Amino acid sequence: MVQRYFVKEDQWDNQTVVIHGEDVHHIGRVMRMEPGDTIICIRSDQVIAECRITDISSDEVTCHIESWISEDRELPVFVSIVQSLGKGDKLEQVIQKGTELGAYRFIPFKADRSISKWDDKKAEKKIQRLQKIAKEASEQSQRTHIPVIENASTIKEVMAMGETFDAKVFAYENEAKTAEFHSLASHLETINAGDHVLVVIGPEGGFSEREVNTLYDHGFQSFRLGRRILRMETAPLYYLSSVSYQFEELR
Amino acid sequence: MVQRYFVKEDQWDNQTVVIHGEDVHHIGRVMRMEPGDTIICIRSDQVIAECRITDISSDEVTCHIESWISEDRELPVFVSIVQSLGKGDKLEQVIQKGTELGAYRFIPFKADRSISKWDDKKAEKKIQRLQKIAKEASEQSQRTHIPVIENASTIKEVMAMGETFDAKVFAYENEAKTAEFHSLASHLETINAGDHVLVVIGPEGGFSEREVNTLYDHGFQSFRLGRRILRMETAPLYYLSSVSYQFEELR
Repeated sequence: MVQRYFVKEDQWDNQTVVIHGEDVHHIGRVMRMEPGDTIICIRSDQVIAECRITDISSDEVTCHIESWISEDRELPVFVSIVQSLGKGDKLEQVIQKGTELGAYRFIPFKADRSISKWDDKKAEKKIQRLQKIAKEASEQSQRTHIPVIENASTIKEVMAMGETFDAKVFAYENEAKTAEFHSLASHLETINAGDHVLVVIGPEGGFSEREVNTLYDHGFQSFRLGRRILRMETAPLYYLSSVSYQFEELR
Repeated sequence: MVQRYFVKEDQWDNQTVVIHGEDVHHIGRVMRMEPGDTIICIRSDQVIAECRITDISSDEVTCHIESWISEDRELPVFVSIVQSLGKGDKLEQVIQKGTELGAYRFIPFKADRSISKWDDKKAEKKIQRLQKIAKEASEQSQRTHIPVIENASTIKEVMAMGETFDAKVFAYENEAKTAEFHSLASHLETINAGDHVLVVIGPEGGFSEREVNTLYDHGFQSFRLGRRILRMETAPLYYLSSVSYQFEELR
């Protein structure tokens, strides 16, 4: 399989791409590629080119653009995941797998019952690390968009954010406990290709009553994700898989 | 939330349930429960009872059956996942998340390109450990069935197993690279509630040519899981989520 690299717009001209930074190490040392080898370069505006390496130095790789590629690997719906902070590496897991499954953006969420806390002083470094996970998962799954990782938000900030979205919803475990549940399908049937959707996922202990009330008050709709109770890191994967199934596979 | 425990059939009579083994420690020491507290007991034939603890000793917990519960958390389709052996704890991840998502059975698969090997001498212990993960995930997601973990199988054994299934399929990454792909929907539309489906998931490096030919020769159908290339541990979660969406949410 041909390796894929995201390269910033200002490193492209009509015929060449110049790669800097960590990817130089990956190309030269990890993959042991040489001039003449082929890679795929992806520009931030989702232009894609098949490139031939012409020169490798210790700090840059120069490539010649052989051909332009048109392909569409992006989910037709733009899904922004508001993910409650959880134990251990759950946020990392959600970002890695959620990126593979086509998420557009991630917003870590300081939920009332979040066990792990977000250290605002270390936020910049943390976001950089999460952004790197998203970049690698995008390359792995051959996507043309790298999801953006936002700073962690409070419920108030999430409510303000919601104003600009076409649809806003939250996965609520109580929906799995009633016969009058709102099915995920009843939500997805109101969504069209091109829509931006904001999805809020609760923490291990579930949403607090205050959060549930706030969500409903601001027009967020709750829905069910199947009959079983899912862990907080599994719920967004179910949601994204279903959006893909509905919009890419079912049509 | 009331704690749930799976209790073997021979420990039940009409009025009482007696719990042995590790769950005794969990009830007494981890949860610090006392006589008078309520738990949910689930029998292997999927009968469920709300029980009140009457006595806790160091090696058993005795409970009085207060009421019988009827609930259905099981996926209407019986999905057996043939999961290629992969790096690190990928098999464990698939069993934990796949159980939450409703899988019926797991068969570890010795694929040609599997990086991790299955040590037949240590198989019994390994399966016990995997079975414990499945049990805990079943309790977490409030299921009434614990998926069975089979011994690791060769391609020949998987083909023989396939004979008894209503449908047999494999997730093939090449389907995501052609405009004439077989959509997951075209497969699920041929499935009915109550059917048993065998799904084969390839390893990190993909199926070998030999395996792909063998699968097609034995009537396995390939399908696509969205437009993106998924990791081996993400593919079964996409599949199970879509089965749940199609059969539990979409109707």
